Formats: sequence, C-alpha cells, structure tokens
Amino acid sequence: MSETDTPPSSKVIRNDPWYGSYAARAEAMRASEIRALFAVASRPEVVSLAGGMPYLEYMPFKELSELIAKMMVDKGDVAWQYGSAQGDPHLREDVLQIMELEGITDAQPDDVVITNGSQNALDLITRIMCDPGDVVLSEAPNYVGALGAFQSFQVEVVNVMLDENGLIPESFEQTIVEQRKLGKKVKFLYTVPNFHNPAGVTLSVERRPRILEIARKYHVLIVEDNPYGLLGFNGQTYPAMRSMDNQNVVYMSSFSKIIAPGMRIAWMIAPPGIRQKLVLANEASVLCPPNMSQFTIATYLDNFDWKKQINDYRGMYKERCDTMDAALHEYLPYCSWHKPKGGFYIWLKIPEGLDSRAMLPRAVTAKVAYVAGTGFYTNGEGRDHMRLSFCYPTPDRIHEGVRRLAGVIDAERETTELFGTSGVPDSDPRDPEYPGPQVR
Amino acid sequence: MSETDTPPSSKVIRNDPWYGSYAARAEAMRASEIRALFAVASRPEVVSLAGGMPYLEYMPFKELSELIAKMMVDKGDVAWQYGSAQGDPHLREDVLQIMELEGITDAQPDDVVITNGSQNALDLITRIMCDPGDVVLSEAPNYVGALGAFQSFQVEVVNVMLDENGLIPESFEQTIVEQRKLGKKVKFLYTVPNFHNPAGVTLSVERRPRILEIARKYHVLIVEDNPYGLLGFNGQTYPAMRSMDNQNVVYMSSFSKIIAPGMRIAWMIAPPGIRQKLVLANEASVLCPPNMSQFTIATYLDNFDWKKQINDYRGMYKERCDTMDAALHEYLPYCSWHKPKGGFYIWLKIPEGLDSRAMLPRAVTAKVAYVAGTGFYTNGEGRDHMRLSFCYPTPDRIHEGVRRLAGVIDAERETTELFGTSGVPDSDPRDPEYPGPQVR
Ligand SMILES: Cc1ncc(COP(=O)(O)O)c(C=O)c1O
Ligand SMILES: Cc1ncc(COP(=O)(O)O)c(C=O)c1O
Repeated sequence: MSETDTPPSSKVIRNDPWYGSYAARAEAMRASEIRALFAVASRPEVVSLAGGMPYLEYMPFKELSELIAKMMVDKGDVAWQYGSAQGDPHLREDVLQIMELEGITDAQPDDVVITNGSQNALDLITRIMCDPGDVVLSEAPNYVGALGAFQSFQVEVVNVMLDENGLIPESFEQTIVEQRKLGKKVKFLYTVPNFHNPAGVTLSVERRPRILEIARKYHVLIVEDNPYGLLGFNGQTYPAMRSMDNQNVVYMSSFSKIIAPGMRIAWMIAPPGIRQKLVLANEASVLCPPNMSQFTIATYLDNFDWKKQINDYRGMYKERCDTMDAALHEYLPYCSWHKPKGGFYIWLKIPEGLDSRAMLPRAVTAKVAYVAGTGFYTNGEGRDHMRLSFCYPTPDRIHEGVRRLAGVIDAERETTELFGTSGVPDSDPRDPEYPGPQVR
Repeated sequence: MSETDTPPSSKVIRNDPWYGSYAARAEAMRASEIRALFAVASRPEVVSLAGGMPYLEYMPFKELSELIAKMMVDKGDVAWQYGSAQGDPHLREDVLQIMELEGITDAQPDDVVITNGSQNALDLITRIMCDPGDVVLSEAPNYVGALGAFQSFQVEVVNVMLDENGLIPESFEQTIVEQRKLGKKVKFLYTVPNFHNPAGVTLSVERRPRILEIARKYHVLIVEDNPYGLLGFNGQTYPAMRSMDNQNVVYMSSFSKIIAPGMRIAWMIAPPGIRQKLVLANEASVLCPPNMSQFTIATYLDNFDWKKQINDYRGMYKERCDTMDAALHEYLPYCSWHKPKGGFYIWLKIPEGLDSRAMLPRAVTAKVAYVAGTGFYTNGEGRDHMRLSFCYPTPDRIHEGVRRLAGVIDAERETTELFGTSGVPDSDPRDPEYPGPQVR
C-alpha cells in the first residue's frame, strides 16, 4: 500500500444484507485490523518501512511531459482508443531489449503479452491454468499479491523451502512428489528468483538449471516473476530461467519498479499455446491494457537513456539498503537477516518469543511501520519475521525508523522476559489478518 | 475488437505440450475462425460495422495535451506512483456529478470503486459473488464481454427475455423461480438497461420499479451496467435503477464510450458490504487502477465542458444511426430491427433460413464486416441476427457498408431458395465460434 493512501473501506460493515450470498473465495476477504493500522501508518510522522513503492524523484517529469504532450497530439486518436488485447506491438518490441539484459535473446514480439501490472499477469496465468483445488507451489514466505491472485481462483498454495541461495531444488522436487501422492494436480511453481519479495534472497545461478530439470522431469510449469532483476546493487544480473528454457517457463516482468507503477504496465512471455490463452484471458479480465499507458512507457523508453536511469536508481537503493543494514547492526544486533544484493526488502528475524503481528500497533504508536511476517503466509506462520522496505524512505528516515523499531523490540523483549509472552495466542491457522495484496 | 487491430495469436497452436494441463475454464478459450476473419476485416477497404469503438475526433487533443503535461510536472510523483485500490479520491468525487444526470443523487465518494474499464468491473463483481455453477441471469442476446467474465468464474448464464421495451419483468421472475426449483443459486441479474449492446433497446421507465420489486422479493442482486446512458440521441436520459434503490443494485458505468476507452477507466457503486469486497477484489486483480489514467480523466473533466462534448457526440451518433436506419430501409427492407434511441448498435434480424455466421466470410469478401448473432449467445443461438455498429464509420461508409451487406444477403437468399440452406448444420450447441469479448 502506498504511504499516501488512506485504506479504503476499513470499517467493519454491520448487518450486510448480502452476507451469506458471496462466493466462497470472498468469505476470507475482509478488511483486517492491519488495514486500519495502515491509515495511521500513512501519517507523515510515521516512518513507513512497510510499502513497496519505488522512489520516483529521478524521473525526468519535465522533459517527459513535453514528449507525452506531443505524442498525444500526434497519436491521440490511437492512444485514447481501445487497443489490442495482446498489447501494443511497438511496446511488445521494446520489451525485448529489456529482457536481453537477463539473457533472453530468442523472444519475439508475438510471444509477449502486455498486462495491467504483474498483478494482473498473476491473475491471468492462474485463471488459465488452475481449477479450484489445484496446487501451486510457491516459495515461503510468499509474495502477498500472488497469494491474492491464487486465492481468487481457489488454488491451494503449497510452500517450497527457501534459503539464502533461494528456492531449494530438493524441496521443490520433494513437494511435487508428495503432492502427486496426495492426488493433487500441481499446476506450476511460482518463483521470484531475484531479490525476493519479501525474503530478499536471490536464486543462485547453479540452482537454476537444476530447477528447470526438475520442472521438465515432472512436467510442471515454472512461472518466473522478475520485477526486481535489474535492481542488483552492483549492476549484476542473473540469467533468467526463461533464457535456459523457452518451453517450460512463463516469464513476467514489470515497469513498476524500474520505471513507474502508475501506468500499471507489465509483460509476460509464454510458450505459444499458453500465450494464446493468456491473450484471451486478458480480454476477459480487462479487454485490453491501456493504450495511453503503453504509449507513455514507449515514449519514455524511446527517448531517454533508461539504462542509465536504472543505474542511478540502483545506486540509490544500494545506499538505502546499506543504511538499513548498518542501522540494524547498530540497533538490533540480536536480530538476524541476510543482506540482500538488490531489490527493496530486508526480511528480519526477530528474537524467539516475540510476535511481529502483535507488536505492530505498538510500533505504529512509536511512529514506525513494517509488514508483519504473517502477511506472507496463509497459515499463520511468520510471527517471528517482519519485512522492512528500504525503497521509499530517505536514508535519514531509514536510520530513524530502525532506531524507533529497536525501541519497540527492546521493550517487547523486556515484557516477554517478565511475562513469558508478548503476543496473542495462536488460534485460526489461516491468518485472519492476511493483509491482502495491498502490502506490496 | 478495434478496426486497427490485428488479431493476436489467431494461428492454431499444434502440439501444445501443455495441452491437458489447463483449467477447465480455459478449455473453451481458443482462437476462433472469426478472429482470423477480423484480421481481414480490419483492412481499410473493408467497411467494418463490427467494432464498438467510440469516435474520438472531437476530442480536444491539443488543449488536453498541454494540461496533461502540466499535470505531470505538478503531480508526476503521484500520477506515476501506486495508488489506492479503491481509486483516486478526486476522481471518485468527480463521477458523482456524472451519475446525477441519471438521477443518482445519494452516492458518496466512498461508495465508488474505480476499475480498469467496466470489463474489470464485471470481473470483480463475478469474482466476489459467484462460485462455480452459480447462476447469473442476463438478457439475451448478451453483451459479449460479460459472457467472458462470467465464463472465467465458471458461472452458468441463464437468459432472460428481452423485447423492444427491454428486459421483461415476468421473464425475470419466472426464471428466478425456475432456477430455484432446480436448486440453483441465482447470484444476480446482469442488465444493460439503456441502449443495449447488442439489442439496441432501452428498458422502459415503467418496468424499472417492477424489476427492482422482483429483485427485493427474491433477494437477487441487480448489476446495472450503463456505459451508454448519456448517449440518448435527443439528450434524453432515464432514471438509473440505482437511483430508486441503493441496497439491491450494483451500478457500473465507464468513460470508454463518453470520453475515451484508451485510459481503461470505469467505476462502480455498491452497497457497503459489497463495495468493501470489490476493493479487495480490485487489489487481487490489478493492485490499483492506473493513477496516470485517472489523473488524465480528472484533468479532462475539471477543465473542459464535457457535457457539451457528450452532446456533440450524441448528435454525431444520431446522424450515423439515422443513416444506417435509412440505408437498411433502402437496401434491406425485408429484414427487421428496432431503431435505437441512443447508443451504438442495431440488432438486425435477417430472413428465415439465413445464417449470419456462415455468411460472414462472404460478407468480408464483399468488403463489409459485422458481428454474427451467435457471438452474443453461449448456446449457438443467434444465427438469425447480426449486430451492426454505427459508432465508428462515417455516414458515407455506413451507407456503403449496408449496400454491400445487402448484396451479400440478397445473394444468400437466392442460394437458400435454390438449395434450401445456406449455413452449416447445427452441431455443438455451445458456440465454438464464440468470439470472445474482443467484439465489444
Ligand atoms: C514479486 C512481485 N511480483 C509482482 C509485483 C506486482 O507488480 P505490478 O506493480 O507490476 O503489479 C510485485 C510488487 O511489489 C512484486 O513484488
Ligand atoms: C454493455 C457494455 N458493458 C461494458 C463494456 C465495457 O466497457 P469498458 O471499455 O469500460 O471495459 C461495453 C463495451 O462495449 C459494453 O458495451
């Protein structure tokens, strides 16, 4: 959720006359306490380490606006019109050069489907692949938005283990075997190989071909979600799994983190049969992605040195990550984390016995916000973790935020030592406070 | 589908390694012959009476582009950022004045949810209300895009009858009773009360309260889809059903037909319980609607005399409708149709024994395109009708298009008289050529 955002509809609705009429998938959808907290967390005096918003101040808004004005005069009748359900052909051409940076060199414009953000890409792939009750394998902790899409199509999410080198191939294989034994249909593996949200880790280059091998062996599709791949702090990139296999991978990336999310433009590439259905699903979902947004992105890509700009962003995010890492060492040395090599997030393990979810109201009172680890699981796990974002606040604010957080955690530890527990007791294993995809 | 659009992925995919792995809902999704035809139909020499694209040449692109450039400089950091899942508060305020024109005076900004076009609004309401196998009632012929959304959530669409005064209340009531007897859960009535797509008819003002009464009696929700309501040829409007009942109606409208579809911005209003779930569903589907599009629409609404502009469009569409009506009287007097009082479409009944679907390739060869009636049903009905759009081509082209069409129909009648049939025999009752929502 954006820091400037007031949480919509966070009040509890009483006496809903339609209660009992909703789809099963909507039963679990309700405004959570966490949403209400976000209203407070978005006040300017609170340092929010919660959101996944990119920092936009480097965008050349002035020059861009002139070019976009010209584009509108020249091509307004097309930019403002319905477009192709597959996406604008020019933009489909443009994204090829971006994917080349991660080793994907064989894609054609016709392989590409433009979507309304990767969120809708996740929706589309789930829509065409999954019947209710089918299994999707996903790294735990999970990206929240993916959980929201999976839930919409009543998919069962089964978690695969992750370590500091990313998804563990043996866990992947073992889970497939187990699920098949249970008679489950495993439709795909959903994976965020680079600078994982929220775990911060990156899949090692050695593991990539092993995961593909397992996928081929069991004929399980891989959905490779890669919005952060170009945000390696030292400019390093990793070969996309799609670059090693064009038959078993659906690849998706987004302009949200490397350019700007306000256009809601992302893209997928997929093998022909799947791609054809994705286009049809795109029509059923949104008719077509917005031409105006697509033309705006293309105007930017065609006229600016976007590689340099991404490089500038990388440097900025690196500085922020370093600041957060140093502040954590300074104030919270008894917590543990893997320092990420890129992306937006640190996944912080808090001391035994503390509960990140129960602690959140106290943190917000102390004017710092984070996302409790429970948001990244569907089963109530994650109380021992929290996600800290370093993408949006300035280094000063990050330092101050971690300092405030340490105050809260220190106090929490004292209470725990005195009373043995700080949190609410475990009850519903399905997390009732699942925050929904608004926690990006 | 837009006239300028080449149909994506219309080739038949052979040897798809993922064949057999798709969701049940995706089985029926395949590129149809009709799509392939559209590729030809989009050539400039073909008069397309097929698309539902608004005519945009009256848009003040020059003045608009300057204001949008200014907006980007002033508010770029917000316009390019993630936004609220419920939609931009300013735009949610703006739409209230539009709805007032159709008698909705009690809505608040917090009742509004902004969506990625009404297509996504249809997706969202179906997502939160319908389990697989639930029933949605819908006027037949049906709006194609709605069928696409319903199919995504495996809804059973049951048709309710329509006459020249719109939905027939008795048919609505009877169908509810019948479906309940069958043990079906009827989740909502989907209706396009004004200038129906494709039927062209408008629900009479007398019938509106009766339909609401039935909805309340049986506790069936009404989904009122109203993209054309302000396009009455004489400036007439009709009171929205939502203006008579704010508890049992989910209302949706769109900027696509009155301003421009290239932003993909539409809106819904709903009772609080439903609205809250719609916001959560919006997040699961797209995270948030594009801020840039929302700010662009708001810039237009805030700075231009949009009422005057809609009035200009109305006059233009009226002229085009008159031209088509006159040409039909001149060239196809033996066909029948109700001349619409607004909107974009004429629903033409062709002579007994002819088959609009079978005839389409011959029409395209004769350089005129339309949408075969079968596209608006899921059960193979509709061969005796076709939808003719008068929104996009100029009056000259419309006249010429009808002339060409008459040539095809005349020839077809001769063949039928000689051989007894012109069409392919009925086989699969579920229309294999269902064209998908791209036929707007
Ligand atoms: C892993 C991952 N995938 C997808 C997305 C969604 O991106 P988009 O803005 O393109 O919908 C995000 C956003 O945070 C993300 O972290
Ligand atoms: C009845 C009806 N509803 C909804 C839509 C979709 O409009 P939007 O462009 O807002 O998705 C259309 C478009 O033709 C329509 O005719």
